[in-house]
Amino acid sequence: MFDSIHEECGVFGIRAPKRCDVAASAYYALYALQHRGQESCGIAVNTNGVIKCHRDVGLVPDVFNERVLGELGTGHMAIGHTRYSTTGGVSRINAQPLVVRHVKGTLAIAHNGNISNAAEIKQELELSGAIFHTTNDSEVISYVITKARLTEPSIEAAIEKAMYKLEGAYSMVVMSPRKLIAVRDPHGFRPLCLGKTEDGSIIFASESCALNTLGASYVRDVEPGEIVIAEDGKELRSIRAHCGGPQSFCVFEFVYFARPDSVIEGASVHAARLRAGELLWQEHPVEADVVIGVPDSGLDAALGFSKASGIPYGVGFIKNRYIGRTFIQPSQGQRENSVRIKLNALSETVRGKRVVMIDDSIVRGTTSRNIVELLRGAGAKEVHVRISSPPFIRPCYFGTDIDSTENLIACKMSIPEITERIHADSLGYLSVEGVRQLARTHSCGFCTGCFTGEYPIEIRDQGSKDKFQFELPANQETE
Amino acid sequence: MFDSIHEECGVFGIRAPKRCDVAASAYYALYALQHRGQESCGIAVNTNGVIKCHRDVGLVPDVFNERVLGELGTGHMAIGHTRYSTTGGVSRINAQPLVVRHVKGTLAIAHNGNISNAAEIKQELELSGAIFHTTNDSEVISYVITKARLTEPSIEAAIEKAMYKLEGAYSMVVMSPRKLIAVRDPHGFRPLCLGKTEDGSIIFASESCALNTLGASYVRDVEPGEIVIAEDGKELRSIRAHCGGPQSFCVFEFVYFARPDSVIEGASVHAARLRAGELLWQEHPVEADVVIGVPDSGLDAALGFSKASGIPYGVGFIKNRYIGRTFIQPSQGQRENSVRIKLNALSETVRGKRVVMIDDSIVRGTTSRNIVELLRGAGAKEVHVRISSPPFIRPCYFGTDIDSTENLIACKMSIPEITERIHADSLGYLSVEGVRQLARTHSCGFCTGCFTGEYPIEIRDQGSKDKFQFELPANQETE
Amino acid sequence: MFDSIHEECGVFGIRAPKRCDVAASAYYALYALQHRGQESCGIAVNTNGVIKCHRDVGLVPDVFNERVLGELGTGHMAIGHTRYSTTGGVSRINAQPLVVRHVKGTLAIAHNGNISNAAEIKQELELSGAIFHTTNDSEVISYVITKARLTEPSIEAAIEKAMYKLEGAYSMVVMSPRKLIAVRDPHGFRPLCLGKTEDGSIIFASESCALNTLGASYVRDVEPGEIVIAEDGKELRSIRAHCGGPQSFCVFEFVYFARPDSVIEGASVHAARLRAGELLWQEHPVEADVVIGVPDSGLDAALGFSKASGIPYGVGFIKNRYIGRTFIQPSQGQRENSVRIKLNALSETVRGKRVVMIDDSIVRGTTSRNIVELLRGAGAKEVHVRISSPPFIRPCYFGTDIDSTENLIACKMSIPEITERIHADSLGYLSVEGVRQLARTHSCGFCTGCFTGEYPIEIRDQGSKDKFQFELPANQETE
Amino acid sequence: MFDSIHEECGVFGIRAPKRCDVAASAYYALYALQHRGQESCGIAVNTNGVIKCHRDVGLVPDVFNERVLGELGTGHMAIGHTRYSTTGGVSRINAQPLVVRHVKGTLAIAHNGNISNAAEIKQELELSGAIFHTTNDSEVISYVITKARLTEPSIEAAIEKAMYKLEGAYSMVVMSPRKLIAVRDPHGFRPLCLGKTEDGSIIFASESCALNTLGASYVRDVEPGEIVIAEDGKELRSIRAHCGGPQSFCVFEFVYFARPDSVIEGASVHAARLRAGELLWQEHPVEADVVIGVPDSGLDAALGFSKASGIPYGVGFIKNRYIGRTFIQPSQGQRENSVRIKLNALSETVRGKRVVMIDDSIVRGTTSRNIVELLRGAGAKEVHVRISSPPFIRPCYFGTDIDSTENLIACKMSIPEITERIHADSLGYLSVEGVRQLARTHSCGFCTGCFTGEYPIEIRDQGSKDKFQFELPANQETE
Repeated sequence: MFDSIHEECGVFGIRAPKRCDVAASAYYALYALQHRGQESCGIAVNTNGVIKCHRDVGLVPDVFNERVLGELGTGHMAIGHTRYSTTGGVSRINAQPLVVRHVKGTLAIAHNGNISNAAEIKQELELSGAIFHTTNDSEVISYVITKARLTEPSIEAAIEKAMYKLEGAYSMVVMSPRKLIAVRDPHGFRPLCLGKTEDGSIIFASESCALNTLGASYVRDVEPGEIVIAEDGKELRSIRAHCGGPQSFCVFEFVYFARPDSVIEGASVHAARLRAGELLWQEHPVEADVVIGVPDSGLDAALGFSKASGIPYGVGFIKNRYIGRTFIQPSQGQRENSVRIKLNALSETVRGKRVVMIDDSIVRGTTSRNIVELLRGAGAKEVHVRISSPPFIRPCYFGTDIDSTENLIACKMSIPEITERIHADSLGYLSVEGVRQLARTHSCGFCTGCFTGEYPIEIRDQGSKDKFQFELPANQETE
Repeated sequence: MFDSIHEECGVFGIRAPKRCDVAASAYYALYALQHRGQESCGIAVNTNGVIKCHRDVGLVPDVFNERVLGELGTGHMAIGHTRYSTTGGVSRINAQPLVVRHVKGTLAIAHNGNISNAAEIKQELELSGAIFHTTNDSEVISYVITKARLTEPSIEAAIEKAMYKLEGAYSMVVMSPRKLIAVRDPHGFRPLCLGKTEDGSIIFASESCALNTLGASYVRDVEPGEIVIAEDGKELRSIRAHCGGPQSFCVFEFVYFARPDSVIEGASVHAARLRAGELLWQEHPVEADVVIGVPDSGLDAALGFSKASGIPYGVGFIKNRYIGRTFIQPSQGQRENSVRIKLNALSETVRGKRVVMIDDSIVRGTTSRNIVELLRGAGAKEVHVRISSPPFIRPCYFGTDIDSTENLIACKMSIPEITERIHADSLGYLSVEGVRQLARTHSCGFCTGCFTGEYPIEIRDQGSKDKFQFELPANQETE
Repeated sequence: MFDSIHEECGVFGIRAPKRCDVAASAYYALYALQHRGQESCGIAVNTNGVIKCHRDVGLVPDVFNERVLGELGTGHMAIGHTRYSTTGGVSRINAQPLVVRHVKGTLAIAHNGNISNAAEIKQELELSGAIFHTTNDSEVISYVITKARLTEPSIEAAIEKAMYKLEGAYSMVVMSPRKLIAVRDPHGFRPLCLGKTEDGSIIFASESCALNTLGASYVRDVEPGEIVIAEDGKELRSIRAHCGGPQSFCVFEFVYFARPDSVIEGASVHAARLRAGELLWQEHPVEADVVIGVPDSGLDAALGFSKASGIPYGVGFIKNRYIGRTFIQPSQGQRENSVRIKLNALSETVRGKRVVMIDDSIVRGTTSRNIVELLRGAGAKEVHVRISSPPFIRPCYFGTDIDSTENLIACKMSIPEITERIHADSLGYLSVEGVRQLARTHSCGFCTGCFTGEYPIEIRDQGSKDKFQFELPANQETE
Repeated sequence: MFDSIHEECGVFGIRAPKRCDVAASAYYALYALQHRGQESCGIAVNTNGVIKCHRDVGLVPDVFNERVLGELGTGHMAIGHTRYSTTGGVSRINAQPLVVRHVKGTLAIAHNGNISNAAEIKQELELSGAIFHTTNDSEVISYVITKARLTEPSIEAAIEKAMYKLEGAYSMVVMSPRKLIAVRDPHGFRPLCLGKTEDGSIIFASESCALNTLGASYVRDVEPGEIVIAEDGKELRSIRAHCGGPQSFCVFEFVYFARPDSVIEGASVHAARLRAGELLWQEHPVEADVVIGVPDSGLDAALGFSKASGIPYGVGFIKNRYIGRTFIQPSQGQRENSVRIKLNALSETVRGKRVVMIDDSIVRGTTSRNIVELLRGAGAKEVHVRISSPPFIRPCYFGTDIDSTENLIACKMSIPEITERIHADSLGYLSVEGVRQLARTHSCGFCTGCFTGEYPIEIRDQGSKDKFQFELPANQETE
């Protein structure tokens, strides 16, 4: 139904030097991370070891209001989460943070990523008597950590032990009665950064834009494999037992997911997108009169393309800023189509011109075709489509919804076929080699599994991407 | 804060011979069981082994509408629950039915009662690595059953085994992908009955009034200790391994909790309340001009008192039928007091008269005093209060909120002191002996623990009634 | 669709000696008047001459919460309204109080009744250039008063003049920047009483039960034709130019509409209903074992019947206290029928017995038949129906929804036919002569138009009961 | 409180050749006009002469859902409205379209603008007995039109006559049972255009972007003073009695209010903003390294400035796309300030650079200062502010909320003082002469009253901008 790619989560954590309105800080930070998940969200506040949590389906301003924030109260610590999932109305149960009580106390978890061996772990846990309330990975992670805690002397030691079991992508914040802990998987698939405020608060967030919102400064990224522990009255500590391996950062974070004002692994997302435009020009030059971007994520690459090529940059589309989730979809046959409701082409910019149109990706192709049609309807003479990432040909197992190959147009069609399908005059994708060069200052390795099928981790059961489904088949019941 | 006693739950289950709108049946049945819990409610529907659940804080009409029922869909089975709890806004997590996934499939549970050794079991489970999302007993029960299921050949065998571990009060319905199972604890503290419809549906409900709503006929009560299994294409089966012990039915169900049109253990609740009035007259006769009841639960006993005594029955109060949970409480000092908003005394009935006023119980005494004042303000010459139950002197550990002794006026004052406190001319409570005779046709034994302190089960940790609290102290965290 | 009769409004007004929380007083009073209108409600508060109003579709607790009351603020005066109307979702526009601005200032009006010459007045006003936003009579009344105000020296003089033009039923409160005025039409169809509190507040309300809720004392009824003016720093004044004619009080207020704890025209509503039962016994005696009432309005008459006849009074039905407006109606063919969801018959009371069942009225007969069936299903041997009012044979033009004769079973069937239709063993209606005797202490005359077709006012256009419809035919548009 | 300027309305009307889902068309069109008013909105549908209307406080997706649209039903015609007003919670009464019933039928009106002699007309109407429910101009307009209709032979003739009385700005759509009529005041202050679809629907909208959304083509603007009548089975007709005078189009529509993809009076709004940037460079050149715009309205002018100057264009800010009306404002002293929550500066673009920052206007200066600070915090070496309009020095009387001079910084400070106040290195406003040249292809005259105090219409009572207030002083009440 949706012709775009979604991130699956944003996470946030704060530890303040004294009891204060940490719920408000989480609220503003979640606003800054809303682009990483628009389905549900939640905040858990820790008041002297007692953890209160509110989470629900909806955007941050729908789920939280002054009364709800007031009921969460003040505290020393809070964590927060924004989530996207593909399931419909029944997903309140999967909203995070997850709060569980185990033998040593209460634990709150907010997680971004995807545990690629979750099904195996789940099976093993169930055989030992575990029961599951949700279908999200956070519950699996909670079990692995709390089980480890039975024998380990501290929650951070339990996390260290759990990391030997958990495979895949996880950037997460964990809150115990007295500690705020940030954890990133050894491959560092998803971003997670550390910041601080002038008053001494420690902050963890999926992206640095959340730090800016709070007036905090960016310190560094949490390292792949690192466990960072913020505890009252103590220096920030790290456990690096899992650090040191090669990184496989999701390159699509630079292309599309992250906010352009974020800095990840020391590289500016905005700069990476400008660079994508430059590389696109180098790889797929074209004679044209104007370069435009599809809002919002194509704009930066269009600017880069313009600068590299000397072709003037123009504003090709106006995006309706008021279209939200509750928007009623037009019925089949209504003359209003949903692309036209969201986007309008600017005739002033494109009429009679040869247009280069930059977008971040093509999934099924339907939306691309509609957008090209908008430009032609507004008078564009030629439309040359440039895509700032390579074609998707394989599912992602590390935290996005690039899933079944049957929905991916590039699995079924050649470039010339896609060009025709979307009514473009020409089409060029950024190469895999190109996408690896986006963050020039970035020394880390990238995961390009969705473009190449080469995953940094062996995926044992590639068929099962069903773990986000709440409806479960009955056939496991033997009786 | 609340000067009355609350039941903690109502449960419902239906198994239809063919796929149909079981969600609607549950909806109407929960309306009939709404008096057993007004805080939250939920329905779980089983469609070919897939269980969908919707539950939330609110009354049945607030939580369910046509869209929500439509999303639950049709099925062969459904269970439902209405819940009362003392905690405030954060209790959505505790709404039932609880739906969990274990190694053998999915399980939905709706429970009425209180597991008196829940803390012990929880501790034991946590030590083996269990984590808890909620603070309700249903989760403890789920664990015990699913753990047993690891070695037992069927869900009913697992329940039978679990019952050796679970102590206390539990009347519950359990739904697996293919079975609907009703269970009642060996003491039979809480009611649970079995009904059927003409089209062959099997129904379980806390009270028979839910059967009437659905046009179903009452078959019998589930026996104390019995496990009843309704399975597709098979006869109704029972496991009676836990049956046969002495019953300890909660006598306050007859006095107050149950709806008067319900029949419990073969006895009419309405008849029991008429009988309470008769016994009150025998135990505490008084010369008077009119007998009135405090609506709604005092009305039946007032009628019984009138018949036994020959003193005319009158309508003493009109209760406002529109006051609900969202009612704004008057502030201190406002001339409107909340009793006056809910009740109005009928001068026509009481002016210049010696009035006998029957109520079901006195908790803190504040409300009783306000009600007596209403009668005096309306012109009553004398007010003789008769209570259709003995004084509360001990907490209940089996599913009601009669809890801390410090809120119970009868723990701190003698009868003459209470009489003075509530501004009555005389006061008489029904004796413990009397309350045991309420259900004359009823052969079973009663639990009168809250009146006598003699509990049918040993309560090892009488201090802990905190299990319904979501906020947890941090001191169990050792790190 | 609805097989019952509805009142169309309740009104309330308060003038306090000093600025205070008059909105809260209105809120509690509207709760007490909720039975007079459950569709919409509203409160207008006067703060130093500035009138703020909030009104919406819904019950009092749905429309008002602490935030809304807070925004209305404190003041010296407030008026309030509860409304019932037959139209569906579009009626927010018709919610009252109506607040209009005219040349001399602002005017707020809350009205109960029906202007029988509204169509004529409206036509005349439109011809002079008036425009109408609503379809309720309050807007017509506002126009007539404010037009009169153009030439009259005061708002009360304008009201006096307007009363020469307005025909029909109107009990209303009018609030100008500095005055609170209560008005009752010369026939006094609808109730309106005057009360006061110890702190000197003047209160007007449709029924005295609203006074009790506020701890106010009943002073007297506003007289038919009287205009009572409460003004700051002045004694309560009256204009009685329209007083003195014969009264035609709606007798159905005593039978059904009013709350039994109200006192109207000096007579207790409860006493009137007891009297209805006595008279029914005298007019339609029957041998029986038990007398029961259909809740809630049949209960008092059942008690009166029992006392007069010596046949024991019993509780025949339990009414579900949680069924509200948002209740999902069962679909055709569902085994749950809506009567069964609302009412349950008590077998204990009726099994094997000859039952006298008292209800207040029969409209279409469908509900009566379902209720009789409930009793038979619960084991009643005979069911003798007694109705505490005469048969409806004509529409009401004075403020109720007894409208088209085609929905009234008594217009189309004889008593024996109705008896058979509702499956009763016998049926007796209270006579018109009897209903006139209900309020024995009541010296005033009654309107019995709906029972006799003899109306106290000539109805010139009996065909048009359409004024409550919002949808308007286009055929008046000549172009 | 709000440091920005607001338009007051968007209007829409459609007449389809056959009955269809005109409500859906209105819904999508209002989305496209949402930027012209975010406070309340409404749609009125005409089904065979019967007009149903739904309107409420909230954004389009809040006020309308599938159920509400379904209840409005299908029809031949619909009109819609989006509204901004400065008053708070009580403005539901002022939501439009207004629907009134007069002697010749029903009339629905949606209006954008401001009647500058409304107070006079209102006074006159009140003296003839008119009453007012709202405080919006649409009610005044309705009265004037319907009064004229008493003597005129058609609604369009009545409108023509009414226009002799109405002064000020009004672009509106009027719907009678059988006609859809668009009207624009003789000065043509506010935009209003005409479009059509391939299936023959006639559409009127404030801006052409609404036509694009519906897949309709732009035909032309409604002329200043023109009345366009769309009637079933007839050609589109015009009354031009009021046409021909000099136009005074609001130049701020080009600068800020209108969507850049709209074409107004034949000129592209986007092109006008590019032109503003060019002119700013000509009038206020500066040496700098990068030109950035404040999103969203400053972006186009920044691009124009860049093109004219040769200084590179950059992305200076990322705006949070999820911040909406329900956003909780940070409390004083919280480190999060609201500018930082909405905007983040891109260090990558501005660090170490001399920055030209383009914005559309400065109202109080507070926001401008905060934005400049963001840039400095992100490392900008110099910040040169350029404003694409002249300083506001006088109120607007023609449909915007540029009101009291005391809130306008340019009334109180010189340019150097403002420069210092907002912490800029230099500051340049577009000249009044410049702003007149924005729309080069545009032959019409402009209203620049807010920049010059020279209004095209004499404003007799410049003190009263209070007509949007619902709270009315009591002092007009003489009694």
